[in-house]
Amino acid sequence: MTSSIECKNFLRSLQLLNLLIKIGVKNLILCPGSRSAPLAIAAGELNKLGLVNIFNSIDERSAGFHSLGISAASGHLSLVITTSGTAVSNLLPAAVEADRSCKGIIFLTADRPLRLKDCGANQTVNQEDFLSSVCRKVLSTNLNGIHETEENEIFNLVRISEKQMSTFPGPIHLNVPIDKPLDISFLNKKNVLEVFERIYLKKKYVFQEVDIKSDKKKFLEISKNLNLDESGIILVGPYQGSINDLPSFNKSLGQLQEITGWPVFADPVSGVYSDLRGLIVNWELVLRKNKNLINCYQLLRLGPMSSSNDLEKFLINFQGVQILIKEKNHRKLDPIKKSFEYDFGLTNFTSLLKKELSINEKNKKSLTPLALDLLEEGKQVKEILKGNITYENQITEYRLANLVPKLWPAENPIMLSASSPIRDWLTFSENGTLTRNCFSFRGASGIDGTLSLALGISRIKNPLLLVTGDLAFLHDINGWLIENSIDMNLTILLINNNGGNIFNRIYKKNLKEDEFKKLFLMPKEINWPKLAEGYQVNFRSVANFKKLREAFDWSISIEKSAIIKVDIDPQNEICEKNSLLEKIIGS
Amino acid sequence: MTSSIECKNFLRSLQLLNLLIKIGVKNLILCPGSRSAPLAIAAGELNKLGLVNIFNSIDERSAGFHSLGISAASGHLSLVITTSGTAVSNLLPAAVEADRSCKGIIFLTADRPLRLKDCGANQTVNQEDFLSSVCRKVLSTNLNGIHETEENEIFNLVRISEKQMSTFPGPIHLNVPIDKPLDISFLNKKNVLEVFERIYLKKKYVFQEVDIKSDKKKFLEISKNLNLDESGIILVGPYQGSINDLPSFNKSLGQLQEITGWPVFADPVSGVYSDLRGLIVNWELVLRKNKNLINCYQLLRLGPMSSSNDLEKFLINFQGVQILIKEKNHRKLDPIKKSFEYDFGLTNFTSLLKKELSINEKNKKSLTPLALDLLEEGKQVKEILKGNITYENQITEYRLANLVPKLWPAENPIMLSASSPIRDWLTFSENGTLTRNCFSFRGASGIDGTLSLALGISRIKNPLLLVTGDLAFLHDINGWLIENSIDMNLTILLINNNGGNIFNRIYKKNLKEDEFKKLFLMPKEINWPKLAEGYQVNFRSVANFKKLREAFDWSISIEKSAIIKVDIDPQNEICEKNSLLEKIIGS
Repeated sequence: MTSSIECKNFLRSLQLLNLLIKIGVKNLILCPGSRSAPLAIAAGELNKLGLVNIFNSIDERSAGFHSLGISAASGHLSLVITTSGTAVSNLLPAAVEADRSCKGIIFLTADRPLRLKDCGANQTVNQEDFLSSVCRKVLSTNLNGIHETEENEIFNLVRISEKQMSTFPGPIHLNVPIDKPLDISFLNKKNVLEVFERIYLKKKYVFQEVDIKSDKKKFLEISKNLNLDESGIILVGPYQGSINDLPSFNKSLGQLQEITGWPVFADPVSGVYSDLRGLIVNWELVLRKNKNLINCYQLLRLGPMSSSNDLEKFLINFQGVQILIKEKNHRKLDPIKKSFEYDFGLTNFTSLLKKELSINEKNKKSLTPLALDLLEEGKQVKEILKGNITYENQITEYRLANLVPKLWPAENPIMLSASSPIRDWLTFSENGTLTRNCFSFRGASGIDGTLSLALGISRIKNPLLLVTGDLAFLHDINGWLIENSIDMNLTILLINNNGGNIFNRIYKKNLKEDEFKKLFLMPKEINWPKLAEGYQVNFRSVANFKKLREAFDWSISIEKSAIIKVDIDPQNEICEKNSLLEKIIGS
Repeated sequence: MTSSIECKNFLRSLQLLNLLIKIGVKNLILCPGSRSAPLAIAAGELNKLGLVNIFNSIDERSAGFHSLGISAASGHLSLVITTSGTAVSNLLPAAVEADRSCKGIIFLTADRPLRLKDCGANQTVNQEDFLSSVCRKVLSTNLNGIHETEENEIFNLVRISEKQMSTFPGPIHLNVPIDKPLDISFLNKKNVLEVFERIYLKKKYVFQEVDIKSDKKKFLEISKNLNLDESGIILVGPYQGSINDLPSFNKSLGQLQEITGWPVFADPVSGVYSDLRGLIVNWELVLRKNKNLINCYQLLRLGPMSSSNDLEKFLINFQGVQILIKEKNHRKLDPIKKSFEYDFGLTNFTSLLKKELSINEKNKKSLTPLALDLLEEGKQVKEILKGNITYENQITEYRLANLVPKLWPAENPIMLSASSPIRDWLTFSENGTLTRNCFSFRGASGIDGTLSLALGISRIKNPLLLVTGDLAFLHDINGWLIENSIDMNLTILLINNNGGNIFNRIYKKNLKEDEFKKLFLMPKEINWPKLAEGYQVNFRSVANFKKLREAFDWSISIEKSAIIKVDIDPQNEICEKNSLLEKIIGS
């Protein structure tokens, strides 16, 4: 009775999704399509059973990023379901970012059965190859159709995915050939569901425990270069681990700081807690000012390098030891190529170190002289900033970077788009992001997917503030096509500098105005309030910091998605910023 | 003086673009970025010299499709320039379609030099792999940077591209590592330009002539199955050759028809001229009505199969000989797997056939009895349609398919999106598309890129009418971010059925209303007039065919991009269409 292709397609889809839910999937993004119908209908039933949330998205590119946002904010594996054909190719941008930022996503893509491949059948392409350049694994159910896939084969596919996620998380492509019929009758659906609920739903599946790997030999080889009696700095770049591991990461970081007494330079998206001892405020400006004066024996770098030219120069010129610790990331992460790299995370490294040195909790060192000097320098810079950045000033990007973390409630999360905000916040945010979760997608650092990523985060952590430039925001305007996107508790601070402001810093001086606009700025004539009305999303335009504060209060109170636009004059921005930097660096 | 990296970057960029222009590039789509600056600045200079048009596009995905539209409408190679990183991944959807529809595009993507690859450098990814699954070739300039690439190496890369385009056209990925400095001073630019104009601009480059291949042996093997004394049908699917070869394609088709006297079934986007003898009007409905009655010895199929279930069934059940002729396409194109496939085009096939059979121009056969029968059947269907589809009726999708080709001036081009319009037009357009260029991207048949493709076509052939559903239109709303997109001579007939109407036909009956909406339809609350205002594009909503005619007159007269929206009631649509089909098939 349930052995027809129609029933098998549905049953296997239920089993596959059920197992994926068991390994952590809680949210599923569904894109439109016909070939994927058995998966969509099965997802709908599992949703009714309360096992998984479903959100639909018309644009697969946005769906991919949305899923990535959910994965980053929840620490759980997330899932995208698409139909066959070009739909799959639209997933690549999010797959690239998931690969580089080591976040678990499974792309479940329906495909045509083998007999229709490579013979010119409509909407049939070599989609199984499209994501292979960046996915950790490319898997497939039976090529003739999911109805010919056995239960244990499905279990195996999910087991392989689970293992990948717990060792080196990232994107996985699971291609699912499905043969017709794609629809299922009411009666057949009822019968299959009955079988599924009776036999499979409560069945225990044993996934092999994966040992979190460690490499003692490598640790010893690396740690022998450390000298805890000498001065050092801990540099924490963008955090790449799971958000669920942040407490243990911070605990280990605290221990390391106590063992060493070293100062800490933390990236705005490092995930470091703001109450860490030795945290240097304004470290990037301190580094610019004192680049040739900071002397120490060693650097302990956590995660990828922050995007700072001054930091890069400092690291290149640094003569001492550099050790780089990565969170479950087996890739090389040091463009300077001067560090020893350790793949198995800070928690593992710290615990080995403590064991090795027989250090216990009470071995707390005072802050080193370097740390005290840098703390003092940071305070001085803070004073200068305080005198020059006030709520009465005209709005500029660097002032936003300094004041927004103070205006947006300290416990509320923030996401920074990968366009100009991220650099300004690195320089001017004074560790203001560290009192909360602060997200930015620094794996490949593309401007794509910005809105969808923020919508994904805000499903898990809100009220969320997204800080974005106009280009990055427009690039992913299709985020609004995600289900109930306008009802999220998301505030978007839209910094409108009418084009690619980042290019003003480099290319403006050697080009005529019209050339510069055509080749770099690419300004758009957008009527912003109307565009917002088009998507029926709340919108306000504000002209000063007082109004911005009011607008934040308003957007938090309505608990809906809202765009708050501020206009920036790039010319003015550059002049004022340069004069402030001169004051700091020259002081 | 011009030997610095700065100057070399610029000079090599000029040389590369100049050579690409020499092999046919006339239009270039430029995306924002910093790494690509030398290419952008060089493009700007060549534009000033009048050698190439430049249009910028913020979204690389739309840029890719825009370029593909230009390539399809012009028959010339087109070019997209992007920066490094995720930018490249956004090109994949257009690359997939270019691959399947065999259109020449070169993706010129700036990259970081080798020393920054695979080491965690910011915005540095394995982009050279991203498009390899669908590109004919993946090429690169010197991995250390374009400044280390010699002139003859650049020439070689362009020569390889040229050869590919003239044998089996499709997408090519040319990755261009560029080292810093990326900007160039006014003075250096002037000096390099002087050298370039004096030495390289007018230099003659000899590209080897590529023989258009033929395969006499294969032809003989295939053609011996033909029997010109027996009855046959010529089926013409979507045209995949170059638009510049359409005249010779039609000339050969005319000759073939004269040699055989066979009837011709032409797809709406077959490129067949409307005055061809033997052209059967309403052939798809005729086929549905007479599927078991049409008997003949052989079928001559040109290009891929039209998207018609009834045609597919007919071909599967057909007992005679099937020969499939493709235009410079070396892929298998017969999902039925019952045909002999010939790769080298109709013109080549026809000329070999004439030679082989010693046929001269005067061997004109009368129409076969089958042709006469089918012509008569077509006329009868036409009468029924005429009685049931009038300008007074409510607007439905199938009525639009029938009447729009009559309302839109007969010589003005049309593009059909790959969503529901394409199927309705196949059934109901009565060869009304064949009086003009009619485009649709049937390679992978995705709904993505619709607006950008239409904008690309309308740069070359206009006034253009785009017929699209709301989902396909929204998916690529970023087409409006292409330079001067709102000033194109493009009319968009936006068929608003509030979601994926195509699914109504299959999944509605076995799902509850809310489930069906969530899992398949995915309707969006869009305020269309406001959305149009947001992008500052002209907009009208019309409710009947009389107003539609007026709106067409208006949009043609303003010579700007304009959206004309018609609302469809999917329920009503299905009922009325089914009753009409019953009238025809049952008559």
